Amino acid sequence: MQDLFFEDFVTDEVRTFGSHKVSAEEIISFAKEYDPQPMHVDEQAGKASMLGGLAASGWHTCAIMMRLICDGFLLRTASMGSPGVSENKWLAPVFPNDVLTLRRTVMEARTSKSRPEMGLVSFRFELLKADKTVALDQVCVIMIGRRNPGARLA
Amino acid sequence: MQDLFFEDFVTDEVRTFGSHKVSAEEIISFAKEYDPQPMHVDEQAGKASMLGGLAASGWHTCAIMMRLICDGFLLRTASMGSPGVSENKWLAPVFPNDVLTLRRTVMEARTSKSRPEMGLVSFRFELLKADKTVALDQVCVIMIGRRNPGARLA
Repeated sequence: MQDLFFEDFVTDEVRTFGSHKVSAEEIISFAKEYDPQPMHVDEQAGKASMLGGLAASGWHTCAIMMRLICDGFLLRTASMGSPGVSENKWLAPVFPNDVLTLRRTVMEARTSKSRPEMGLVSFRFELLKADKTVALDQVCVIMIGRRNPGARLA
Repeated sequence: MQDLFFEDFVTDEVRTFGSHKVSAEEIISFAKEYDPQPMHVDEQAGKASMLGGLAASGWHTCAIMMRLICDGFLLRTASMGSPGVSENKWLAPVFPNDVLTLRRTVMEARTSKSRPEMGLVSFRFELLKADKTVALDQVCVIMIGRRNPGARLA
């Protein structure tokens, strides 16, 4: 059921969502399919690399964050998709047994003049490790339907 | 074997690599794990969505592109990782049976003064459909080891 609309995303609001414990198995399984660089598929190679240990592919961390976004609020949201990401920084490696949470900041929410049925919300999404280190920092726009599209623009 | 170094990436060079035919099974399998929005896991929901059919998660298309990057040249390259992506645009949906190729443009290659053993290469990576439509357009910096780190900077 979609019960969250454009109007529910308030500029400057910060919230955290969910939790995902990373396993060596999923790091290796994702990497074998999509990013088979040695430090993502082999523990020894990881230790020898600048990452310091077997570490998740950056694209795997993006995928884990997307799952936290979905479960945290997006599946309940009248989302109309995303044109893309304007910033995506891998700031710290993600290792087996890391427990990741999502921090969401609403950076800007604006209605669309050309498409009054929706608004555009800019989010900062951060993936936090248990010690609050930011592993991934991303800025992403999502198009979100308005609760009452016929209402006058403020 | 790593036989490609910083010096092998020449500004303005454009090359295409690889090919990957997308299946409905992999779209659904990826999405069930990482992005279970209805249009990524169910054909009817995809048809009813603005995407017009069952379509790959944007993060799945990023992962597919990463695999083409790995197989195309990165596994042969003295890569030292990537700090991130400065632009990532999902321009067209990816459907089952789409055949995707990678187009790589070297936007800038510069040596690092503080770390003379490496250089920074800015790439534009585009994921092309068979009709040359660009499905994904990404700008990404990769740190790449120099062939002869002791050489004088040009």
